[in-house]
Amino acid sequence: MSETSKYKLSSLSLPRDLKKLSINEANELCGEIREILISTVSKTGGHLASNLGTVELTMAIHRVFDSPKDRIVWDVGHQAYTHKILTGRLGDFQTLRQDGGLSGFCRPDESVHDAFISGHSSIAVSAALGIACAMKASGDNHHAIAVVGDGAATGGEFFEGLNNAGKSDTNIIVIMNYNEMSISKNVGAFAKYLSQMRTKDSYHKTKSVVERALDRTPVVGKPLKKTIRSSKNAFKDILLHSTMFEDFGFEFIGPIDGHNLSELERGLLAAKNINGPVFVQVSTVKGKGYPPAEKNPGEYHGIGSFEIKTGNPDVVTSDSFSSVFGMELCSLAKSNKKVFAVTAAMKYATGLHTFAKSFPDRFYDVGIAEQHAVTFCGGLASMGYTPVFAVYSTFLQRSYDQLIHDLSIEHSHVVLGVDRAGLVGEDGETHQGIFDVGLLTSIPNTIIYSPSCYAELKLCLDRAVNEDGGICAVRYPRGSQGYIFGKPTTDYYYENNSADILVCTYGRIAGNASRACAVLKNKDIKADILKLVRIFPISDEIIDIFKHYKAVVFFEESYICGSIGEKYSAVCPNVIPVALSGFIRHAPVSTLLDENGLSAEKMAEKIEDIYNAT
Amino acid sequence: MSETSKYKLSSLSLPRDLKKLSINEANELCGEIREILISTVSKTGGHLASNLGTVELTMAIHRVFDSPKDRIVWDVGHQAYTHKILTGRLGDFQTLRQDGGLSGFCRPDESVHDAFISGHSSIAVSAALGIACAMKASGDNHHAIAVVGDGAATGGEFFEGLNNAGKSDTNIIVIMNYNEMSISKNVGAFAKYLSQMRTKDSYHKTKSVVERALDRTPVVGKPLKKTIRSSKNAFKDILLHSTMFEDFGFEFIGPIDGHNLSELERGLLAAKNINGPVFVQVSTVKGKGYPPAEKNPGEYHGIGSFEIKTGNPDVVTSDSFSSVFGMELCSLAKSNKKVFAVTAAMKYATGLHTFAKSFPDRFYDVGIAEQHAVTFCGGLASMGYTPVFAVYSTFLQRSYDQLIHDLSIEHSHVVLGVDRAGLVGEDGETHQGIFDVGLLTSIPNTIIYSPSCYAELKLCLDRAVNEDGGICAVRYPRGSQGYIFGKPTTDYYYENNSADILVCTYGRIAGNASRACAVLKNKDIKADILKLVRIFPISDEIIDIFKHYKAVVFFEESYICGSIGEKYSAVCPNVIPVALSGFIRHAPVSTLLDENGLSAEKMAEKIEDIYNAT
Repeated sequence: MSETSKYKLSSLSLPRDLKKLSINEANELCGEIREILISTVSKTGGHLASNLGTVELTMAIHRVFDSPKDRIVWDVGHQAYTHKILTGRLGDFQTLRQDGGLSGFCRPDESVHDAFISGHSSIAVSAALGIACAMKASGDNHHAIAVVGDGAATGGEFFEGLNNAGKSDTNIIVIMNYNEMSISKNVGAFAKYLSQMRTKDSYHKTKSVVERALDRTPVVGKPLKKTIRSSKNAFKDILLHSTMFEDFGFEFIGPIDGHNLSELERGLLAAKNINGPVFVQVSTVKGKGYPPAEKNPGEYHGIGSFEIKTGNPDVVTSDSFSSVFGMELCSLAKSNKKVFAVTAAMKYATGLHTFAKSFPDRFYDVGIAEQHAVTFCGGLASMGYTPVFAVYSTFLQRSYDQLIHDLSIEHSHVVLGVDRAGLVGEDGETHQGIFDVGLLTSIPNTIIYSPSCYAELKLCLDRAVNEDGGICAVRYPRGSQGYIFGKPTTDYYYENNSADILVCTYGRIAGNASRACAVLKNKDIKADILKLVRIFPISDEIIDIFKHYKAVVFFEESYICGSIGEKYSAVCPNVIPVALSGFIRHAPVSTLLDENGLSAEKMAEKIEDIYNAT
Repeated sequence: MSETSKYKLSSLSLPRDLKKLSINEANELCGEIREILISTVSKTGGHLASNLGTVELTMAIHRVFDSPKDRIVWDVGHQAYTHKILTGRLGDFQTLRQDGGLSGFCRPDESVHDAFISGHSSIAVSAALGIACAMKASGDNHHAIAVVGDGAATGGEFFEGLNNAGKSDTNIIVIMNYNEMSISKNVGAFAKYLSQMRTKDSYHKTKSVVERALDRTPVVGKPLKKTIRSSKNAFKDILLHSTMFEDFGFEFIGPIDGHNLSELERGLLAAKNINGPVFVQVSTVKGKGYPPAEKNPGEYHGIGSFEIKTGNPDVVTSDSFSSVFGMELCSLAKSNKKVFAVTAAMKYATGLHTFAKSFPDRFYDVGIAEQHAVTFCGGLASMGYTPVFAVYSTFLQRSYDQLIHDLSIEHSHVVLGVDRAGLVGEDGETHQGIFDVGLLTSIPNTIIYSPSCYAELKLCLDRAVNEDGGICAVRYPRGSQGYIFGKPTTDYYYENNSADILVCTYGRIAGNASRACAVLKNKDIKADILKLVRIFPISDEIIDIFKHYKAVVFFEESYICGSIGEKYSAVCPNVIPVALSGFIRHAPVSTLLDENGLSAEKMAEKIEDIYNAT
């Protein structure tokens, strides 16, 4: 707490007191916030560039609107750190993403000011419209405000939301935070459309929107009103007729300079005073105010801790499952000309940047559009190509229907590189990759590999691309490989010492299982170990092995319902599944593994208990 | 075969010969096709109105393009009957949707002319783009053509596809078949946008697109070329500058009169001769040429057999699970003012039309936008309302991520009315509701009810709305209730006669199970019966009952992976799951139940086998 007491912010009652400040005082606070953001994220890691871009926007929103009566929905919470600071969470802000601390995203159970959960992209308009319709039903005249980055606008649900919001009879305000980036450089026609608007010099309807808004502006504090009056002409200039959003039914305001607090407040006040749906376009600079982040916003999107002075990351990124995946795919693509790579706005994070450079004609970044990505792969596959879609486990959830309908029914051969499979740690509930196993096993014609080390990842990817058919998922965790044992394989590795107990598992935690067995050996408790690599479909060969044991303890870093252990226990009564029982909070992966019984120590305890009971 | 021999169509080699015909001859064939469509669907049932709307469009496509070298992707196959007739399937057309006959949708395994599967909406642009990129990679200059109805444009994936297609360096042609209807009356801002374009009279760019196209038009047959030349000025009039699609990167042609074959062919020829992505808007009349269908396109969207002369359906629709659901929800909404109803373009089919009339302020039809629907429900729920989303089982698949991220994590209370759960029969693979159980059970904080009769449906809906929390799914089949036994309940009904075998099941097939037990009783084989209604989470009370039996045969009209039987067998070794092993072809439901072991007769056989083995 003492760390933040030096800030003027800490003396305020937030967000209420923000309205009492002069524009200069508010601008000063923005400086303080930037300092806090940089200093905190340099220690905790997190999303920096996007948050530095929304400091003034957030300040303006909280000065013009009245949270929590007005409900602010942030699309993907990684632009909402300032919102956290301005809604009473300054004192805890240093605990960001730490065990027991603040979430890196918006969470209604963390604060009444977090109107809706945010972690996955493109949902804010839909959620805000639900809130706005509820307000309407309750006779509540407050506003539902969706703040959306332009990256999120490549996701289809954003358009589904716009299509419904534009014609709604509600006070919904959609604020498009335009910074030309989603996570890496933004793709697609819509981004170009927004970009053009930024430079257009034909301003239509200057009179209609502004005048109407200003005419009806109530006294919202003298300073604001004065500013609005004195700059009426300047304000007109920020209005621009956009056929597209107006055709969708919105009043359109923008583009507004997202780092000019006065301009922002005038724009938002105008939006507030319009009856019906309003679309506000705000232009921001990702990383604003921190030169290294302004220069390399992609690198500072989601980062670990770093040295503030130089901007250098504290730990030099070594190889990872993602980078090995990317390099191996390049190697496969050299010999197999049919291989394409597809990503949904995650070129760097999934390790595909080298592929993109080496095979530009066979690389597609489709934007945050996982549904399209899978159907697009289906189109490629129908012509005899072999697309490899690299996607985070948690975002693959967006493609469930497309996997069934566009791939599985016709047995299309598409490879999924399921990155961030298993626990991801600090990003928490919305990002843990714990559902992909249940998801994929509930779809016919799927094969799942879960390699435990780089060597296995390479073997599995090769087999999935060059030998298998249907939907072949190769799933691997965030980060780098740990303790390795046994010969790399694409099937399974089995150490048979005729013990009574068998320990079975797959993926990253296989190392923990092996160490657990070693610990038990010292206690004269013998347990054999079986590491699965091709985890699905379940196999008769494995069932035959299981039959020889009194008990098979099946450890799994996946949600229990739909897990592999559940499937084996349905055919082998001696299988005891140990898996995750629900959503997993944010904390370091090692902590989470331990408290869910998947550390070497906890595994050893569990095995010993079962050993003693059998 | 003899039935079709009277048609001139039957003497042609299709689609090749179409190009040899004069425009008059082609128009005559369109008349024949309409006759065939009406006559066939009047016997087989199927999609009529949408198909009558695309007769000339399909003829024009096959005369201008060269399938299968040019690849035609139909968005939702229920506008593709003419395509089937024109690609060598006239002789089999009378088998449409019949057991062993033609599919009601496009299926690549049915014909090389069906470039991609179609059954779910809004995917065609994505699939066609994959195909177009594959063509580009192969140096193939043919075209990938997506034919999309305007209803499908409310689905977000359509925009994801457009966003990528518009900027692509490919020969993709998107044909928007605009008829102001999706399934019921189209909703949303985008529909309004398209509608405005239809009446706009400002034609821009007449020179650019047409001239360029015409200048480069090769000799594609003298008649066509002559027509184009003589009507150059008329052709100009059908061109209209649309900022939106052109901003997305497409050349835009349209709106074209979709029932004027000459105009269509000129438009498509122009599209063919443009390098790069082209968007063609075609205006059609749903039901064109059959007055009852023109008058009531909604009613003739998907219908059973009917009398051609009057247009009257052969069977008067009686009550159904859907209608009972709709009426019961009205009843609940009267006493509980917090209840909202949401549908994704299925107001009539899900039985919500009465609700819409009675509670217009609490009813939302969001268009074909299942992702938005669920997040929107999350927004409503966050404000203390209780939304009920009525959705077909197969389309719920689109909402998988939203169910997890936008509802489950925060324990939002949203009720799902999962209609068409289980086998749907004639619509086949793409529409069978066999994945919702696996889908819902793989998500935390869910409750699933599967009532077997109307009375139970009402009880379950009441409990889900007024008593439960979290995601509460009430799933029920297409059509009406069958054989009923036992007292209606929301938990389970158990007949304990101390037999050795227990038969457990849920939903519609409970009646079959009861009849199977009756059959066996006559053979002196005793089997107790347990009908589950609240099927998930699995229950300790049920497990305790199971423990008393030598064997529990668990029959289930769901995909085996992720099934309830699988879950119980994971904890009760004596449970033997009998469920569906994969995708299920189209045929009458009774046939499909029988061949998958779920008719009373097959159940009895299975139980007897197990009885004899225990």
